[in-house]
Amino acid sequence: MKSYWIWNYGDYELFHSNLVNCRRQQYEAEVPPFWKLYDVERNVIFFCEKEIENDGVMKLHLNGKGCIMLDDIRYPSDEEIKIAKGYHTFKICVFNLSGLPSAYIESDVLSTDGSWYTKNAEGKKITVGFEKAYDSPSADVEKFNFSYERVEFVSRTKTEKGVLFDFGKEIFGFLYIENANKDAKICVSYGESAEEALDTKWSVIREHISGSESYKLRQRAFRYIYIEGDLDAEVYAELEYLPLNELGSFECSNKTINDIWNMCAYTLKLCAREVFIEGAKRDRWLWGGDAYQIFKFSKYLYFDKEIIRRSLIGLRGKDPFDQHINTITDYSLYWVISLWEYYMTYEDVEFIKFIYPKAVSLMNFCKDRTNEHGFIIAKGEDWIFVDWSEIDKSGVVCAEQMLYYEALNCMYKLSQIAKEENADYKNQAERLKTQINEFFWKDECGAFIDNYESETVNVTRHANIFAVMYGIANREQIYSISENVLKNDNITKITTPYFEGYELDAMGQIENFEYIYDMLCSYWKGMLDLGATTVYEEYDPKLSGIEHYAMYGDKFQKSLCHAWGASPIYLLGKYFLGVSETEAGYESFTVKPYLGKLEFIKGTVPIKDGKVEVFLSKEKLVVKTDKKGGTLIINGNRYSLTPDEEFVLRF
Amino acid sequence: MKSYWIWNYGDYELFHSNLVNCRRQQYEAEVPPFWKLYDVERNVIFFCEKEIENDGVMKLHLNGKGCIMLDDIRYPSDEEIKIAKGYHTFKICVFNLSGLPSAYIESDVLSTDGSWYTKNAEGKKITVGFEKAYDSPSADVEKFNFSYERVEFVSRTKTEKGVLFDFGKEIFGFLYIENANKDAKICVSYGESAEEALDTKWSVIREHISGSESYKLRQRAFRYIYIEGDLDAEVYAELEYLPLNELGSFECSNKTINDIWNMCAYTLKLCAREVFIEGAKRDRWLWGGDAYQIFKFSKYLYFDKEIIRRSLIGLRGKDPFDQHINTITDYSLYWVISLWEYYMTYEDVEFIKFIYPKAVSLMNFCKDRTNEHGFIIAKGEDWIFVDWSEIDKSGVVCAEQMLYYEALNCMYKLSQIAKEENADYKNQAERLKTQINEFFWKDECGAFIDNYESETVNVTRHANIFAVMYGIANREQIYSISENVLKNDNITKITTPYFEGYELDAMGQIENFEYIYDMLCSYWKGMLDLGATTVYEEYDPKLSGIEHYAMYGDKFQKSLCHAWGASPIYLLGKYFLGVSETEAGYESFTVKPYLGKLEFIKGTVPIKDGKVEVFLSKEKLVVKTDKKGGTLIINGNRYSLTPDEEFVLRF
Repeated sequence: MKSYWIWNYGDYELFHSNLVNCRRQQYEAEVPPFWKLYDVERNVIFFCEKEIENDGVMKLHLNGKGCIMLDDIRYPSDEEIKIAKGYHTFKICVFNLSGLPSAYIESDVLSTDGSWYTKNAEGKKITVGFEKAYDSPSADVEKFNFSYERVEFVSRTKTEKGVLFDFGKEIFGFLYIENANKDAKICVSYGESAEEALDTKWSVIREHISGSESYKLRQRAFRYIYIEGDLDAEVYAELEYLPLNELGSFECSNKTINDIWNMCAYTLKLCAREVFIEGAKRDRWLWGGDAYQIFKFSKYLYFDKEIIRRSLIGLRGKDPFDQHINTITDYSLYWVISLWEYYMTYEDVEFIKFIYPKAVSLMNFCKDRTNEHGFIIAKGEDWIFVDWSEIDKSGVVCAEQMLYYEALNCMYKLSQIAKEENADYKNQAERLKTQINEFFWKDECGAFIDNYESETVNVTRHANIFAVMYGIANREQIYSISENVLKNDNITKITTPYFEGYELDAMGQIENFEYIYDMLCSYWKGMLDLGATTVYEEYDPKLSGIEHYAMYGDKFQKSLCHAWGASPIYLLGKYFLGVSETEAGYESFTVKPYLGKLEFIKGTVPIKDGKVEVFLSKEKLVVKTDKKGGTLIINGNRYSLTPDEEFVLRF
Repeated sequence: MKSYWIWNYGDYELFHSNLVNCRRQQYEAEVPPFWKLYDVERNVIFFCEKEIENDGVMKLHLNGKGCIMLDDIRYPSDEEIKIAKGYHTFKICVFNLSGLPSAYIESDVLSTDGSWYTKNAEGKKITVGFEKAYDSPSADVEKFNFSYERVEFVSRTKTEKGVLFDFGKEIFGFLYIENANKDAKICVSYGESAEEALDTKWSVIREHISGSESYKLRQRAFRYIYIEGDLDAEVYAELEYLPLNELGSFECSNKTINDIWNMCAYTLKLCAREVFIEGAKRDRWLWGGDAYQIFKFSKYLYFDKEIIRRSLIGLRGKDPFDQHINTITDYSLYWVISLWEYYMTYEDVEFIKFIYPKAVSLMNFCKDRTNEHGFIIAKGEDWIFVDWSEIDKSGVVCAEQMLYYEALNCMYKLSQIAKEENADYKNQAERLKTQINEFFWKDECGAFIDNYESETVNVTRHANIFAVMYGIANREQIYSISENVLKNDNITKITTPYFEGYELDAMGQIENFEYIYDMLCSYWKGMLDLGATTVYEEYDPKLSGIEHYAMYGDKFQKSLCHAWGASPIYLLGKYFLGVSETEAGYESFTVKPYLGKLEFIKGTVPIKDGKVEVFLSKEKLVVKTDKKGGTLIINGNRYSLTPDEEFVLRF
């Protein structure tokens, strides 16, 4: 019978997340993350009760060691066991002290699948985890399933001491070196830029090899490879990637916008792996803030629930929750907000029920870090990040309170979905909103300030953006923020595509779509103009030349392929094609297209169990969806969309 | 410089405890424990700040992968790094997803040792763990250091189908098979008894081998080996053991008592390993109740703090504490009581400070399992064990309340030692004592009953023994218990040496030493008379022949080498040689020897930083100790003992 490898639900995701987080290298040193890694359960029992329809046989395969109890009689693994027709109880015991404990039954009458369960500490049944890809006795659950593809370099240049290979665009994969001189001491220097690859002292990723005629070097990101020590060595790469379907698309009359969309989609592709990593070259870690943004972008491109679910599990780990996600206060809060947005998008009630207790312990941890006014503060080695920007973080930080407010709101709604309604979250959110306005809103600035304890009054975009995004600012405040902060060139500009994504989302919410358009055509275009094939971690138009590649005090530490910068996918899908869910799982949704200065826009937005296709020009609007519940909003009018029927409007 | 492998404190102990718990085999199946296994931290940072006296070099060795930050500059492992004379900060980052993350610095000017620390979630410094044995770059921290010794069988008997080898007494170690016929299909059947080894269908441990001329089979316990399938194969064994010093000794005029003491000491030897395991053959698991008893016995034999400390860490695991130790309510409570007894014996304040938070979370878990009267009850799959005996466990079980009372008392005292005094524990203990007396004491029985909710009134020895041991019974109650329960043959006899140990300890406390003596000469002697070389898991004098080997429904499942039966070591040391601490770490202690029916007793009791030697006959008492603080109590008189001076009294 069709059978799958089964494991303790969540442990597969955690196991692979840990592998992801433990692959960072830099200047030939291994760089572990600086936060706690949670691990899989080492000792697991799988239960099942079943009516077996015919006499048959079974064999237990384990990743680990253990046995099976058939009606309380113990049998070893890897031996054929007879099962008689009739009702039986099964219990698989498996431990694995170094890997992922999992089991597979090979049988003509029985299978391991979603009918098996484990029990949590309270004895509650939890359905096991399994993945369709692991469906044979020889499948290796510790190996993630990627796709592979050979690629060649597009140009090769001899320099004084070595050879520079250009692969045409940033890629991620294995590097093969062949026809090498066995005695040569070869330095392989990787670069996202040619300058980085050529600088064997400061290229972030490099490796010294010798002793063989051919090499296969581990998976890394690069566009350029510079080889010193053997001028005749041949190279090629083998891409490793997750074959996700790009269900979303976007095209318009402005080539720059199309190029930006494609650059962003390609950036996401390189960062979509076991989980969403933040960047392809450097950390390749799972970061909570980055992930929160990427989830939104991904929704308009892949609509793949699984990579998000894996990322959410990997980020949160297990209990005790005694350290913020990535040690960052904001990142814990984003995680909770992500859960709600995940639910609204994919309507995965089972997962919310599973993860809800972990959200509760996270929020308890946060509550232990509130001051006498109810504001969340940093304790010990907590990191208040917000953004790479000059925010006054000397005391209670306003932006964090905005996130805390939204997290509390989300928790209240999640508690209802998990059937554990808890009004405390709602009440706490209401109180916090009042406090935020009392302590941080300054009429004289017409804005929220960073920090009420500081002697100087500092206004940055960040808290004000959140105030708009999460509904903390009222109508008058929004107007004031828009005028005094967002459109005010005297307020320091955002320098990360990360936070620019938030700013533009806020602008989208207040329907300032032109601001989004202009920013794409200036800020993102700026990267394209530098020759970027992927979006940068940080981009400051004031810099020039290789200054663009420097970060964290080093010449080439900046990531030139950073998924947090891919917001145009989201912004164009949500505010130009205009598709948004208005009930969980798109039970109802709106389509509110916006053309602006463009001649036409055209694209597809994936939604749950369906899609929406939009074409809009000055002459015509065509909308088609295969899902019911859609409402078109255009020029102040609302139209119900009939599934599978083209809705056409001529102007 | 002399350097050691360092790790996150406690993780070495946990790592090896997990290995111990995952080695059980039975009828050729692997049998994992049925409780949760906690694991090591996967990602660790070691910190140190030091004044380096001369220019030098260092090389970082890791068990895992990572790097070192010298004054915030990152360097890879396994490379020579220069350190200049002067003050430096060091930070080693190491992860290991499958083993024990640990680090070793090889250097002429720097070493890894107890001057390094990690930080806990609150940022508090925790001194790293290290062991003297791991002091070279090539030392393997994942391998525990045992001693090895070759032993030969003492007799060999051909049977109809095979050959039976007798090693003369129970041993533990590798089995070597040589001169085997490569084509033979050999069945190797292990036995603690000859009957077990010869029964290839029901011997608990056996292995089928073929294809080689020589084999080395994994470590197991056995006295007999039966080989079928190759009559010419040669065998020998290689003992694996922990070379602990037997500091305690006992000898007296009764050879049976001496044989019992030796049998008990040998049983402990076979069970003293990475941690104290319960028995040599079957589970070889770390069990909390067994360990609690064994700690007491071990104190009078080895006085080895380390194996107890390792066992305490291994038993408790980490947080969240969401399942009782071994799933057994009593075993969690024993663990807390053990901590206090460990402190009193070894006065290891640092360890108590380290472990105290884990005792708190354990006690919080217990408190969540109290009913409206404050009694601890079972929830979900909690196992109320107490003993293999017919105790009425249908409701609130009295024996558990006795242990809970003592655990609360110990927690109060531990809270003081850990400098976190918490009077709640004391108050809760007092209330519980009142409740126990109100609900469980029945004047009509003159005893504590098992269960107040039951319709039948059931009195067993167990709760009453604890009432005496832990000072719950007052003087009148003790007298009543002694008469109505302990000396009452109508109350079901104890059938495990485990609980017999508790009974005799209670008898010792009420100075009924003759009862102890008589029980040794009957109950323990009964095992000797059966030919035992080690103490049994259970012993019921009413059984005969191979009935003695049966347990858990199987012919040979009983363990014939079970450390929980070694109480005579303790009883003879504490109540006959008479040595007890009266202050932590034997700052003061008493020597109160008892001769009883014996002609003479003679022995040594190890104490902290010293020992006490006692000789007592009808004519003479000689006591000598090398530690100050001792008081001799004999015939109602008290004498101060002068260190290193023989105290002699002639009668």
